[in-house]
Amino acid sequence: MSDIAYSRNLPCRLGLVSRWDQEADVIVVGFGAAGACAALEAARTGAKVLLVEGGAGSGGTSALSGGEIYVGGNGGTAMQRSAGFSDATEDLYNYLLLSGGPNADEAKVRLYADHSLRHFEWLQAQGVKYKNSFIPQRIVEPATDDCLIWSGSEEAWPFCEQAKPCPRGHTPQWMGMGGGRYLMDVLTQRVQEAGVEVHYNTRAVALIADDVNAVHGLVVRGDNVDRCLRAHKGVVLCAGGFVMNRDMVRRHAPQVLRSQFPIGTVDDGSGILLGQSVGGAAINMAECFVTLPWYPPESLIKGIFVNERGQRFINEDCYHGRVSQHIMQQAGNRIFLLQDQETYAEPEFGQFAKIGIAAAGETWAEVERDLDLPAGALVSTVELYNRNAAVGSDPLFHKGRKWLKPLTAPPLVALDCRIDICFYSHFTLGGLDTLPTGEVVDADRRPVPGLYAAGRTACGLPRWGAGYSSGMSLADCTFFGRQAGIQAARRA
Amino acid sequence: MSDIAYSRNLPCRLGLVSRWDQEADVIVVGFGAAGACAALEAARTGAKVLLVEGGAGSGGTSALSGGEIYVGGNGGTAMQRSAGFSDATEDLYNYLLLSGGPNADEAKVRLYADHSLRHFEWLQAQGVKYKNSFIPQRIVEPATDDCLIWSGSEEAWPFCEQAKPCPRGHTPQWMGMGGGRYLMDVLTQRVQEAGVEVHYNTRAVALIADDVNAVHGLVVRGDNVDRCLRAHKGVVLCAGGFVMNRDMVRRHAPQVLRSQFPIGTVDDGSGILLGQSVGGAAINMAECFVTLPWYPPESLIKGIFVNERGQRFINEDCYHGRVSQHIMQQAGNRIFLLQDQETYAEPEFGQFAKIGIAAAGETWAEVERDLDLPAGALVSTVELYNRNAAVGSDPLFHKGRKWLKPLTAPPLVALDCRIDICFYSHFTLGGLDTLPTGEVVDADRRPVPGLYAAGRTACGLPRWGAGYSSGMSLADCTFFGRQAGIQAARRA
Repeated sequence: MSDIAYSRNLPCRLGLVSRWDQEADVIVVGFGAAGACAALEAARTGAKVLLVEGGAGSGGTSALSGGEIYVGGNGGTAMQRSAGFSDATEDLYNYLLLSGGPNADEAKVRLYADHSLRHFEWLQAQGVKYKNSFIPQRIVEPATDDCLIWSGSEEAWPFCEQAKPCPRGHTPQWMGMGGGRYLMDVLTQRVQEAGVEVHYNTRAVALIADDVNAVHGLVVRGDNVDRCLRAHKGVVLCAGGFVMNRDMVRRHAPQVLRSQFPIGTVDDGSGILLGQSVGGAAINMAECFVTLPWYPPESLIKGIFVNERGQRFINEDCYHGRVSQHIMQQAGNRIFLLQDQETYAEPEFGQFAKIGIAAAGETWAEVERDLDLPAGALVSTVELYNRNAAVGSDPLFHKGRKWLKPLTAPPLVALDCRIDICFYSHFTLGGLDTLPTGEVVDADRRPVPGLYAAGRTACGLPRWGAGYSSGMSLADCTFFGRQAGIQAARRA
Repeated sequence: MSDIAYSRNLPCRLGLVSRWDQEADVIVVGFGAAGACAALEAARTGAKVLLVEGGAGSGGTSALSGGEIYVGGNGGTAMQRSAGFSDATEDLYNYLLLSGGPNADEAKVRLYADHSLRHFEWLQAQGVKYKNSFIPQRIVEPATDDCLIWSGSEEAWPFCEQAKPCPRGHTPQWMGMGGGRYLMDVLTQRVQEAGVEVHYNTRAVALIADDVNAVHGLVVRGDNVDRCLRAHKGVVLCAGGFVMNRDMVRRHAPQVLRSQFPIGTVDDGSGILLGQSVGGAAINMAECFVTLPWYPPESLIKGIFVNERGQRFINEDCYHGRVSQHIMQQAGNRIFLLQDQETYAEPEFGQFAKIGIAAAGETWAEVERDLDLPAGALVSTVELYNRNAAVGSDPLFHKGRKWLKPLTAPPLVALDCRIDICFYSHFTLGGLDTLPTGEVVDADRRPVPGLYAAGRTACGLPRWGAGYSSGMSLADCTFFGRQAGIQAARRA
C-alpha cells in the first residue's frame, strides 16, 4: 500500500485496496464519550464493531472534563424534582435553541429535548452514578460528589425570558473534580463487555471510498504499518475537534487565538478533515467555547466587568463562558472586574486563572486613575450602574435583581482579568454537518453514504460560544454518539 | 454521461469520461474581474484558453461595483503624487497586513505591496482610464469621473499608527457611479482580442479529477446538455463568493444575516464547493464585509455612534465598513448617530439607506428620553465625549482631532441607523485557501494539482470585515486573477 496516495485530505480509492486486513460492520474512530456511545449502541444491535483509538487508552478530551451532562425536560430528573424544580420539555427546547445561536440546529434540539430524560436514564443504566443532590450556589463544577448545578445562563437575561429557568448540569457521583475520567471508565467497561474490538495506538489515516465517495472502510496506521479495515455498514468519526491543530484554528477561528489555552487531547482536526475528504461539509468553523473561571464565589457576580474604555458589556450573572465570550469581543486586552468591600472575595480559581488585583482605592476616581483609564470613563459607568442598582434595576444589561448592589463600600477593588495573561481556555464548536441520525451530509445536505460523525468532530447541539453551558458538549457527544452508532449499524 | 454521479460536491472521475467534448490548456470558470484577468494572462502566454460563464454576458459581481482599485506603494501612483502624497511600499504593506486581521496572508500582502504600482500600470495598459485627480473629502465613491479617494481607514486609529496615511482608492474615469461595468467592458474587449474562447450560459457542474484528486477538466452544462472539457494544464475557479447561497451563509457566517442586503450576482458558492470537492480547503468562511453608507457628507463623521445602551463603540472616522462591522457586533438592533446643529446634514444616501431621524431635542436628556434609552446612559456618554472633544482628545476610541467637536448646539439630533431596517449590505470574504500563485491548497497547504482560484472564490487579500477598504476586493481579483492565469498556463 505504501505507493498509494492517500491522506486525511484524500481518500484511498476502493479500487486500490488489494486486500482487507480486517472487516467489521461498523468502525468507530476515537474512544472519547462520543465514540464509546457509538460503539456501544452499534454493538448492541448485534453488529461487529471495531473501535480505533490513536492514544494508548480510552478517554479522549471527555476524560479531561468534569463529566457533567446537560439534561432535563419531561418534568425533570429526580435531582431536579428533589431540588424543587420541574423542567418542561419546551423550556429545555427553548433554552437549547437560543443557546445554539443564529445557526441553531432545530432538528437536533428537538430530538434531544424530547429524549434528554431517557438519555439520562440510559447513562445511569450504563452504571454512571449520580447523587440526588443540588448545589444552589453558582459554581463552575462541584468539588464534592454532588450532582445538580446551575451550569449555564438559565436565570440570566435574555435566556430567562425565553425559557423558565431550571438547573440542568448533572455531574457524576465522583468526589472532587474530574468526573469525566470516571464517566469514561464506566463507559469503557461497558464497551469491553459489549464485545467491541478496540485497537489502541492506531491512528485513522484515510477513509476508503469509491468513485462517488461512498465510504467502505478506513486505512489505519499502527506500529508504522498501514492496514485496510473494511466497514460493511459504516464508519463513525468521533475523533474530537480541531483545537490542538493551531494552523486550522488560525485559518477558521483566528479571533480565538486571543485566548492562549486550548482544552484538548489530540483534537487535531483529523476527524473533520477525513469527513471533508469525501465531500462532508464542515460548518460553523469559527465558533469556539472560551472561558475564564472568574467565579466562584458567587458574590463576585455582584461586581461589574469593564473593558479598557471603562465600559460595561454584559450582564455579569450570565454563565462564565458567555461572559468570557463577550470579553473576547472587546478591543484591547485589559478587562477589569470591579468589586467593593461587601462583594469582594478572593476568586476560588484566582491563582490558577492568574486573576490578580489591578487596583484598589477609596473612590472609583482613584481606581480609575490607578488603572490609567480615560478620565471619567470608569466613574460615569459605575455611577450609572450604582444609581440603577440602588433601585434594583439594570436597564443597560438586565442583570438579575438578586445580583444588583451599588458598589460603594471602600476599599473598592478592580480585579485584573487581562485577556493576554489570565487563564482563558477554549475549544472548537465547528465541525462536520450531520443529520440528527449522525449521517454526515455534503454542502447540499445529502448524506455521504457510509459516513457518520458525532462529538466535536460534528457540529452538534453546542455551536455558539455565547450560548454554551457546561455539560452541553458531553450531552451532545453521548446522545448523538448513540444515534450515530445505531444508525450506522442499521444501514442496509 | 447522464448516469454518472457528479456534482459540485463530487468530482466526475477521470475514468468515467468516455470522450472529451473540447480541449484547452486552461479553463477559467467565471467572467468577472478575476476570471477576465486570469484568462487574459493565460492566453498571452500562448495557451489555449476557454472561459465558461453561467450568465449571458461578462461582468459578474465586479460589474456591480464602483470599479475602484486599492493601489499604491513604490512612491505612489501619479494621482497620489499629484495630490501631494508619497506612498512607501512598506506603508501599503503594513496597512494591508493590519487590514487582513488575525489571519492575514503575509505572502499575498507582500507580493501585492511589491507589485501594486506595476499592476496599476498594467490595468492602464489594458485601456482602463484614470483621471489624474483627487477628492480630499471623505466619500463612498465619486459621483464624477474623478479618481483618487480615501477609501479606507488610513487616517484612523489604529491604522494611522501602523502605516503613514495615504489615499489609495483609484476609481476609473467614468462619469458617475458604476465604474465597475466600465472596467469589465474594457477587460472583456481585451479578453476577446486575446483569442480566449468564451462560452456564455454555460455552468460549471463538476470538476473532472483522477483518483488522487488531480484536476483534468470540467463538466459544464449548457442548453441542458453536459459536456466534458479537458484542461491540459489547469482549471481556474473565479466564480465569485457565496453570499447569494443563503444556506451556506447561515452555516458559515450566520451573524451576518443581521444585515439583510447581500451584494452579489450569482455568488452561489459553487466555485468554493467545486474546489472543496477535490480536497481544496475553504478558510475564513465566517468573515464578511458589511456596510451602511452613513456618510457623506463628511461632517457627519463629527457625530458619534451609540448602541441601544447609549454606549459608543468605535472611532467614527474609520471607513464606513469598519464602523458598520462594529455596529453588527452590538447587541440589539437600535443604533443611533448623534449630531448637533453644526455637524448635522442630511446623509447623501439617507433615503436610499433608510436612515431617518429618530429624535431631536434641545438637550441630550430630552433626546435620551425620546429614544427611550436607559436614563442617564446617553447623557453620560455624550458628556464624557464632549468634555474630551473640547480639548481635542478622544481617549476612549482615538478619533482623529479634526473630527472632534463637542456636540452641544441645539437642535440635537439622533439619526436612526437600525440594523434591521437600514441598508446594511454585505458580501463574503471566506473562500478557498490559495498560494499567492493562485494554486488551491488542501488543509495541509499542499497544492491540488491542476486547480487554481482567484477573486471571492478564494480567500485573498481582503479577509476581515473590520479591515476592509473599498477597492481591496477588485485589487485582489485583478492582481491574483492574473497570477492564477499565468501559473496555470505555465504548468508543466
